[in-house]
Amino acid sequence: MTKNTPPTESTPPSPGEPAGRRRGRPPRTESAGTRDRILTAARGEFSERGYEKTSVRGIAKAAGVDSALVHHYFGTKEQVFEAAIAVAFAPALDAPVAVADGPLEGVGERLTRFVFGVWENPTTRTPLLAIVRSAVNNDTAAAVFRRLIAAQLLRRIAAQVDLPDPELRAELAAAQLVGTAMMRYVIKLEPLASADLEQIIARVAPVVQHHLTDR
Amino acid sequence: MTKNTPPTESTPPSPGEPAGRRRGRPPRTESAGTRDRILTAARGEFSERGYEKTSVRGIAKAAGVDSALVHHYFGTKEQVFEAAIAVAFAPALDAPVAVADGPLEGVGERLTRFVFGVWENPTTRTPLLAIVRSAVNNDTAAAVFRRLIAAQLLRRIAAQVDLPDPELRAELAAAQLVGTAMMRYVIKLEPLASADLEQIIARVAPVVQHHLTDR
Repeated sequence: MTKNTPPTESTPPSPGEPAGRRRGRPPRTESAGTRDRILTAARGEFSERGYEKTSVRGIAKAAGVDSALVHHYFGTKEQVFEAAIAVAFAPALDAPVAVADGPLEGVGERLTRFVFGVWENPTTRTPLLAIVRSAVNNDTAAAVFRRLIAAQLLRRIAAQVDLPDPELRAELAAAQLVGTAMMRYVIKLEPLASADLEQIIARVAPVVQHHLTDR
Repeated sequence: MTKNTPPTESTPPSPGEPAGRRRGRPPRTESAGTRDRILTAARGEFSERGYEKTSVRGIAKAAGVDSALVHHYFGTKEQVFEAAIAVAFAPALDAPVAVADGPLEGVGERLTRFVFGVWENPTTRTPLLAIVRSAVNNDTAAAVFRRLIAAQLLRRIAAQVDLPDPELRAELAAAQLVGTAMMRYVIKLEPLASADLEQIIARVAPVVQHHLTDR
């Protein structure tokens, strides 16, 4: 259970930055730079190892800071994970606005194109895959995923739907998209994995639309 | 990397049973009993630890046999996994027959009821969850899942569909079911996780039917 990472390999916190949970007032730029460096390291660690195998100490080491500084800025491992996901998901969190912009009868296609756009792009696919893997394997990671996706994405889409059970509708629409993405990009089931994207969109978008707006 | 499992804790193979890959002719009942014991142990290990953390040695130990005997009956870890899944999936593999029996216009509801029946039952849910987790995390496990689900389940359903792209249709229908199951039973997103099953079936079955039979 013990690891042999030498604790002295980390860089100590910069002078003036508190090493504990106490909220001091570090110089603004220094603080922003360190925070970003920790978040970048956290995304890398979570992507590579998954939630369970990632430790705050490993993140600190990858960022070249002391573990105490990670705790100072973010708190627990769960909170670092949430912050790292929030950054990785930042473009996705604009989706509800983008999707809600425009006529309601095109919402299925806009949402479908948005989701596949994120999955088709290798830069956004890698962190997303890491999040999905962590959420499937670990209850704490699942809870973070749930809070973020449910509260920030699906509820906002549901808010546009003026029909009974808007949240259940948004979730079943998301289920079609999540299931299709899993089978195409993770399980790589054929012919779905190699099918032309437009062919998939043509079949999936009407179903997403149906869930959201059909009586 | 080394584990401290004493190799001497396993029971040696019974007399007359070859310990290598050579196929001998062990007494029929003894052979069936040992094979079943190994499969039961394998299901337990894969369910508890997932594909990556399970070893042939761990399975052998749980079954009270020598590792060589596991190799003799099943071959590699991947092959033990496939055999263990095939047993866990045996009821599901009857689905295409059950689903194909009856009029085509009811196929969406029959398939949806069948899938949720498997997920709602804790006895069948646990091994299924272990398989899904392994497939999401490990490419070898994903390949096994793919062969089994694609070849044995989806292709047979597709064979009933007399329209263009029957396999893509079956996969997109399955994507709605897999995605809904993931969000209800794994991520536990509300309100989907607590929604009445009949309400979900009423919304999902027409979509499954649409994928399979609408032009």
